Amino acid sequence: MSKFFSEKYKNLTPYVPGEQPKEREYIKLNTNESPFPPSESAIKLSCEQAEKLYLYPDPDCKELTAAVANINGVEFDNVILTNGSDEVLNFAFMAYCDKNTPAIFPNISYGFYKVFAEINGVPYEEIPLRSDFTIDVDEYINRKGTVFIANPNAPTGIALTVSEIERLVKSDRNRIVVIDEAYVDFGWESAVPLTNKYDNLIVTQTFSKSRSMAGARLGFGIADKSIINDLITIKYSTNPYNVNRMTAAAGLGAINDKKYFSDNCKKIIENREYTVKSLKDLGFTLTNSYANFVFAKTDKISGKDLYLKLKERGVLVRHFDKPEIKEYNRITIGSFEQMQKFINIVRDILEEIK
Amino acid sequence: MSKFFSEKYKNLTPYVPGEQPKEREYIKLNTNESPFPPSESAIKLSCEQAEKLYLYPDPDCKELTAAVANINGVEFDNVILTNGSDEVLNFAFMAYCDKNTPAIFPNISYGFYKVFAEINGVPYEEIPLRSDFTIDVDEYINRKGTVFIANPNAPTGIALTVSEIERLVKSDRNRIVVIDEAYVDFGWESAVPLTNKYDNLIVTQTFSKSRSMAGARLGFGIADKSIINDLITIKYSTNPYNVNRMTAAAGLGAINDKKYFSDNCKKIIENREYTVKSLKDLGFTLTNSYANFVFAKTDKISGKDLYLKLKERGVLVRHFDKPEIKEYNRITIGSFEQMQKFINIVRDILEEIK
Repeated sequence: MSKFFSEKYKNLTPYVPGEQPKEREYIKLNTNESPFPPSESAIKLSCEQAEKLYLYPDPDCKELTAAVANINGVEFDNVILTNGSDEVLNFAFMAYCDKNTPAIFPNISYGFYKVFAEINGVPYEEIPLRSDFTIDVDEYINRKGTVFIANPNAPTGIALTVSEIERLVKSDRNRIVVIDEAYVDFGWESAVPLTNKYDNLIVTQTFSKSRSMAGARLGFGIADKSIINDLITIKYSTNPYNVNRMTAAAGLGAINDKKYFSDNCKKIIENREYTVKSLKDLGFTLTNSYANFVFAKTDKISGKDLYLKLKERGVLVRHFDKPEIKEYNRITIGSFEQMQKFINIVRDILEEIK
Repeated sequence: MSKFFSEKYKNLTPYVPGEQPKEREYIKLNTNESPFPPSESAIKLSCEQAEKLYLYPDPDCKELTAAVANINGVEFDNVILTNGSDEVLNFAFMAYCDKNTPAIFPNISYGFYKVFAEINGVPYEEIPLRSDFTIDVDEYINRKGTVFIANPNAPTGIALTVSEIERLVKSDRNRIVVIDEAYVDFGWESAVPLTNKYDNLIVTQTFSKSRSMAGARLGFGIADKSIINDLITIKYSTNPYNVNRMTAAAGLGAINDKKYFSDNCKKIIENREYTVKSLKDLGFTLTNSYANFVFAKTDKISGKDLYLKLKERGVLVRHFDKPEIKEYNRITIGSFEQMQKFINIVRDILEEIK
């Protein structure tokens, strides 16, 4: 840290992304990426834009915004596109939290919420999950502040029903609720339809996981148009050209390729079911995950040791040191072949330590 | 604005990008884009990444960072890559301005500085240019705060010498000076070498103009490694994957293609000289621009009327309503053919109103 760095950030702890080691080929099950390439249509449309890179993108990304609105059953004015869903989440922290309005989120959730609160200098409260890792909606209903909930939650994959979310949203129409649906496409139901009814709800999604575009950086928020208007004010005050030409085109291609998208989501669900069953057969305990990852532990080996032994054998999973979840690993659902190899390696590790 | 929008932004006026009308084909001389496509190598490398979009980018963009360091004669640790140079500028406002450290910049300059100050809630002071639109460095030397200077300045194109910048930087080693060199490649000298000597200087540049990549969003900052470290802390607290895979690859391709880059810069300089001479022949007064635009006025027609008449005839230039510069238009330097057409249309307009 330089001597010039503003006092306000002296205690800032940045987010730590999943490791991306380059020294060997790993089976990468640690960053919730899709194992499938982007759709052919996404590749084609983004390449076509490469030669037009000398021109600025349309800052409003009108065509893609209209397409996102369309597949979500909302109007153009209900959508903001962002540089990954991290950006729309940060915009929401900026717009709807301040010294009088704290951020409220689960103590075990997407690690970036805390960082967004800190970078924006807003107070925050982390609400403990129940001992079974479920979210108790009443804990949020009974507090003042802007609520951020990942649904399904990370790294547990456990999901709240839309009716539970509606109960939270309508319990206090004077506060914003942000539902982060990065993982909703793998078998869960979206809260987007509620945005037509409640002007205090923001739903965020991403093209990173279910649409195989983590490397392109595209996310979006859906909300009442007055809310979208606030977020667009923030966008035009930080980075008006937040979505580049190639990414916007890839997004459009991905949306056009409906069958590829739904087939891939279906495959991930099947591979998840295979992984859950196989891990249970090996004696693991798992949360009830609706995401493209599972969250698993076993009495036979500590979470950290399993993570390390897997890494030695060429498999990366994500381990968190947090006391409540340190016995677990978060395992991204990859292709069937990857999950078979993973299960075989886990079996070998358990054999070895028996 | 929704009723939920934080009080802190109630008076925020977002940046207004140059218009991008779609209703007809314009000769677009209004947003300082390059008239040349990106290098073949940039197109090729970025397309190769399209099929790998399912994987996150390397958040450190190691290969591109090394390449940017190399062409700038600095080390890897002296470089941060960002989503356009707007992002590194915003990071600098975040890191080095606060209620005790105001931002200081010219009253006529890149319009975003004021917006960055406002979105970050930091006090700022706008220092008037001299009546000939030059910057008086002593005005900055005699003030406390973090200095932001575009060099060459926009929309005038007038530049400070590196020795003037050095005088400013060393006048107070306890304050940060940010030199925004978005337009430096069109015949001016960079202050980058000074970053080896002074730990209170940040130089920012962009791939948008001279490398024909406005549509890709790639910029960077160069500074002492302690400063880069601060800026990386901000990056990892807002958007770790700020540069997507395709853009990083395009940047590498653009750097590899040295000759294409220098040829294009040379062409822009030649076309600028042609444009300056032609406008002077038509009775215009121009600033001494070293950028890829010129800034011109004439007694024969108001700035606004010329802008409107040009637009009617299919030419977009940029007009600013600010009283001090409202008689001027900023005209981006395009291809020779574009500038010939532009000059002919200006001549016609002047004939018509005679």
